[in-house]
Amino acid sequence: MRLAELSERSGVPIPTIKYYLRERLLPPGHRISATQAEYGEGHLRRLRLVRALIQVGRMPVATAREVLAAVTDDSLDPHVRLGAAVWAIPHGPEPDGDDPATDTARRTADALLEQLGWRFAQGTGEQSPAYRMVVSGIATMVRLGYPCDVGQLLPYARSAAELAVADLDLVERYERGEEQVEAAVALTVLYEPVLLGLRRLAQAEESNRRFG
Amino acid sequence: MRLAELSERSGVPIPTIKYYLRERLLPPGHRISATQAEYGEGHLRRLRLVRALIQVGRMPVATAREVLAAVTDDSLDPHVRLGAAVWAIPHGPEPDGDDPATDTARRTADALLEQLGWRFAQGTGEQSPAYRMVVSGIATMVRLGYPCDVGQLLPYARSAAELAVADLDLVERYERGEEQVEAAVALTVLYEPVLLGLRRLAQAEESNRRFG
Repeated sequence: MRLAELSERSGVPIPTIKYYLRERLLPPGHRISATQAEYGEGHLRRLRLVRALIQVGRMPVATAREVLAAVTDDSLDPHVRLGAAVWAIPHGPEPDGDDPATDTARRTADALLEQLGWRFAQGTGEQSPAYRMVVSGIATMVRLGYPCDVGQLLPYARSAAELAVADLDLVERYERGEEQVEAAVALTVLYEPVLLGLRRLAQAEESNRRFG
Repeated sequence: MRLAELSERSGVPIPTIKYYLRERLLPPGHRISATQAEYGEGHLRRLRLVRALIQVGRMPVATAREVLAAVTDDSLDPHVRLGAAVWAIPHGPEPDGDDPATDTARRTADALLEQLGWRFAQGTGEQSPAYRMVVSGIATMVRLGYPCDVGQLLPYARSAAELAVADLDLVERYERGEEQVEAAVALTVLYEPVLLGLRRLAQAEESNRRFG
């Protein structure tokens, strides 16, 4: 397809696509004349992913380039590639070194993973940005004096496990390989605002049921 | 307690507390001399909430003041107050007027709420920031050409409903009234990064189970 069709099918304006091409977030098209290039389905998918990372994930261009490098690294197997790409997505604030609240949070997170039997997460531990995101969140609650123990976190972790099954089911609708990794990264980012919005709607529903 | 103890127990530095007092995010203490004031447990709770809104919710001071106004409005009953306070929390991007993707997203969201039987959410509809947040998220997926229908959203909504039960159970640990509304707002904001982090840990776990 030509640039105009790529723009129409992706909903991304032509000048934005040209910018992504210049920034090498999108591979060049197949040149068919001095002024025209042809783009394929792979370009369309990649463009959607770039748009998701930058517009919804609010990622700087340099970070998006890093995520895409992991997506397209053929030297890694799909599971590792998937992990590497999702790891490169920004994860919010890092834990505050080793103040007492962070120590408590780390022990709580470790006990939670132990109880859930999440062996993979236990194995990656401190190296995983998602682990550090959880520790940082728990530490904030500890620091502000909100109770936050394993018993309280368990229902959230169990819901997260159910969400992950839904997430991976969506990913498996795509063909194996690069396409699947692209979908995993895009859906991780795109479903976050939907999930937080649904949680708030569900809260209003539940609050109405209890106190309404 | 004195200012120093309030700072120690909340983990918030004294100059920051003085700033919140000047900005009226925190009610003044009970003056006991020309230079000293006494603060109570209510100040401690309010301070934790302010900190959660500004530091974790990344809210501008003016928005935090608006949320707090809803928290402390005695003319509203607890359920309405809770709703008003949570509604005042920023919800991310608004839907894009009435482009075709937003129309599709609105129909999808309505069909989802209908299928879930969430009557309260259906009643508030377009007026609810959480509803608009969901519509905006679905519209982004539609615009980028990712499939996003009711069947795909249902497991996320069901998890959201389970999360809301956990959320409201936490809120009910507090005494009724202002304290409960404060906890609801703080926990809504504080659990968001923890939940997103747990989802990514669970994804890695599930990905390892399927492809590892």
